[in-house]
Amino acid sequence: MEKIPYRTFLEEKEFPKYWYNIIADLKEPLEPFLNPDGSEVTKEQLKKLFASTLVEHEFSKERYIEIPKEVSDIYRTFRSTPLVRAYRLEKALGTSAHLYYKYEGLNPSGSHKLNSAIPQVYYNKLDGIKKLTTETGAGQWGTALAAACAFFDMDCDVYMVKVSGQQKPQRRQLIETYGAKTYLSPSDRTENGRAILKKDPDNGGNLGIAISEAVEAAIKENAHYALGSVLNHVILHQTIIGQEAKLQFEKVGEYPDMVISCVGGGSNFGGIAFPFIGDMLRGEKKGTEFVAVEPSACPTITKGKYAYDYGDTAHLTPIMLQYTLGNSFMPPKIHSGGLRYHGMNTIVSKLCHEKIVDAVSVSQREVFESALFFTKTEGILPAPESGHSIAEAIKRAKQVKPGEEKVILFNVTGHGNFDMAAYENFQSGKLLDAVYTDEMLEKGFKSIPDIEANKGRL
Amino acid sequence: MEKIPYRTFLEEKEFPKYWYNIIADLKEPLEPFLNPDGSEVTKEQLKKLFASTLVEHEFSKERYIEIPKEVSDIYRTFRSTPLVRAYRLEKALGTSAHLYYKYEGLNPSGSHKLNSAIPQVYYNKLDGIKKLTTETGAGQWGTALAAACAFFDMDCDVYMVKVSGQQKPQRRQLIETYGAKTYLSPSDRTENGRAILKKDPDNGGNLGIAISEAVEAAIKENAHYALGSVLNHVILHQTIIGQEAKLQFEKVGEYPDMVISCVGGGSNFGGIAFPFIGDMLRGEKKGTEFVAVEPSACPTITKGKYAYDYGDTAHLTPIMLQYTLGNSFMPPKIHSGGLRYHGMNTIVSKLCHEKIVDAVSVSQREVFESALFFTKTEGILPAPESGHSIAEAIKRAKQVKPGEEKVILFNVTGHGNFDMAAYENFQSGKLLDAVYTDEMLEKGFKSIPDIEANKGRL
Repeated sequence: MEKIPYRTFLEEKEFPKYWYNIIADLKEPLEPFLNPDGSEVTKEQLKKLFASTLVEHEFSKERYIEIPKEVSDIYRTFRSTPLVRAYRLEKALGTSAHLYYKYEGLNPSGSHKLNSAIPQVYYNKLDGIKKLTTETGAGQWGTALAAACAFFDMDCDVYMVKVSGQQKPQRRQLIETYGAKTYLSPSDRTENGRAILKKDPDNGGNLGIAISEAVEAAIKENAHYALGSVLNHVILHQTIIGQEAKLQFEKVGEYPDMVISCVGGGSNFGGIAFPFIGDMLRGEKKGTEFVAVEPSACPTITKGKYAYDYGDTAHLTPIMLQYTLGNSFMPPKIHSGGLRYHGMNTIVSKLCHEKIVDAVSVSQREVFESALFFTKTEGILPAPESGHSIAEAIKRAKQVKPGEEKVILFNVTGHGNFDMAAYENFQSGKLLDAVYTDEMLEKGFKSIPDIEANKGRL
Repeated sequence: MEKIPYRTFLEEKEFPKYWYNIIADLKEPLEPFLNPDGSEVTKEQLKKLFASTLVEHEFSKERYIEIPKEVSDIYRTFRSTPLVRAYRLEKALGTSAHLYYKYEGLNPSGSHKLNSAIPQVYYNKLDGIKKLTTETGAGQWGTALAAACAFFDMDCDVYMVKVSGQQKPQRRQLIETYGAKTYLSPSDRTENGRAILKKDPDNGGNLGIAISEAVEAAIKENAHYALGSVLNHVILHQTIIGQEAKLQFEKVGEYPDMVISCVGGGSNFGGIAFPFIGDMLRGEKKGTEFVAVEPSACPTITKGKYAYDYGDTAHLTPIMLQYTLGNSFMPPKIHSGGLRYHGMNTIVSKLCHEKIVDAVSVSQREVFESALFFTKTEGILPAPESGHSIAEAIKRAKQVKPGEEKVILFNVTGHGNFDMAAYENFQSGKLLDAVYTDEMLEKGFKSIPDIEANKGRL
């Protein structure tokens, strides 16, 4: 047996006690969230939708934020997640690189999303909230929030992107098994949903529309809203992944030369990468590369603009500085529903803009080829979203010079047990590699608000 | 935090190096397998169907059998499995019992079945075999064998019980994703299948029929056959579960007062219980109770006869001394497809007959109620088969006197991600509690051969 084990776990006494807040280590302060009139969004405004502690987290400048006991008590039922040394994948690729992945699929909800769902429900419970509304794309976030709500006895309404809900009826049933209610979005339950259905009854939905519906419902139904990605406090919770990975790398005596993860709204990427980026920003480490991988069908960073834009189609969210394809951009239907989002978390966007993070895109065909290769070597059937990380990790491993022991860490964010229809499509040759057109891009860009021109005028 | 962690793993250097063979510790030798003429089945006969090392394992009297490096190299990609101290379940039940479970669902195939699939494929590969045939009920064994065949580059044909295949198309797709071929049984590919379809075109199949088809196909197609339960060598491999659990209990400083697991053919029960039963048979421990849990719809031990019977409907297998409902018994359709088997492993049967193991049965309603309770407390959605262990563990925990710190170990053999239709049926009130009738039992018993009467005559 090799000196470094296949899987490294942490014992309870070794668990991270803090989430890591990268805002403390950024060289410049973050650009503020804006209202349509150009004024800064206040904490009080956000507290209408989100638990007060979550809003404090959103803007906190503390480097480390303590994980409450009530959250740890549930984290430990499924964490630590293994840091896996992918010996079988290395052998199959014939690479001298040391390939490691964090596997976040070994929990009730099947993905990393549970890491943020648990604290979000907990802090809302503290505020006396009785119901949460949310949206879900691939279904992973909806499952996670439903599971967390079951643990804390909270009501939960999930607006599920229609195309995902239709592709994955089992996923929808799982969400309901945890006691949550699901609605396919666009739905007839909200004004936003009804307006879209009126124009286009066959609209398959997207994350932007589902967010609009969930936010509208939260306001009207005296509930709070919970978001599975995009915002800073979500990434804060997800840093448990990177915080664990750092301790696990200490145990095996290595440190990554490269950290790779897929990006939809930014939470799993930030979750694994921020603790390592922090090491670099503080000057404690250097030379590590960071790679964010998006689908070529929804190329937010690689083809988008770095601009102030809304987070949703109906303009209910704050306006944030981010990479965006425009809030009206409708990505082609792909199986990686979790990555079909026009925008990107502001911190991830800033780090890409400053070239600290390198963004790349991969095609759906590459994703499924790599995912099946991974299934047959490592034995794990990954979610298509995770297939993006895997595709890029394999590509980078192949570029490593023979004999070079480059350490590559990638994030396998969830299992693909509820994605069998996607795999069937791919294996039967029915999967078409969805692409955007220039026309779609142009149309999207037109929906980006002109903040400078509007300032003081609205 | 409590002194005993929620989850206890083993490090690679602590992994068990041996499977445990309980035959070495039985007070009397096992009754031989017989041919229809009453003569003993020879190793040579079995080697026509099974790899030579597996046949040696079947009859071995060595107490410990070394796990080959090639098998360990794959085991370590998903083992050890956690020994979980179910604090949240204890709290929800208000019991002073210490509840522990081994969770075998955290692997590619989603169940304990992979523990035996890997060595079975490995030893067949050593013998130069190019293709394996098998049957699967719930689909867990088929998935496991397909995954193991993918690891060792072996062809694989899976005869899947028709009713299970129809209930679980995603499970079938998963098996094919690993590169195996699936056929719904009874099929028109074998004489046995065609004969049954001719009499009863709507026959939903059962494990006995599927075994007959897979065995017939193996013989005709120059392949070997692989069995997911029932035989001694399968349980031998599954003892990795109990071997690990013993080491994990040493780490937490406890020892079980009770070991509970569901029984279909006996492999997961034997897998977790035999290493602890061995402690007792050797006089190293005493006082531990062992409980085998079967569905009340297929009450092999609790209502069956202890008699010599065939393992399959078409009489292709040896005749073995076992608890049996008769080889022609057709259990009602239940969602726990893995437990719909008329017979039982000979060693498990012997231990039940000698009252070393206590057999009980639970209804499907109890199973699903307990499984959902478990989902909402421990967060894990279990396979319905595992729900049997959970239902009985909850029942026994409730019987523990307040303040008594009884240590109860149960086996959660797999996840329920491919059983969403079953959960939907239960939650929507459509699940009927399938029962057998006296007429069905009588008809089944008539198919048990009269060995004494036949001896020397056939």
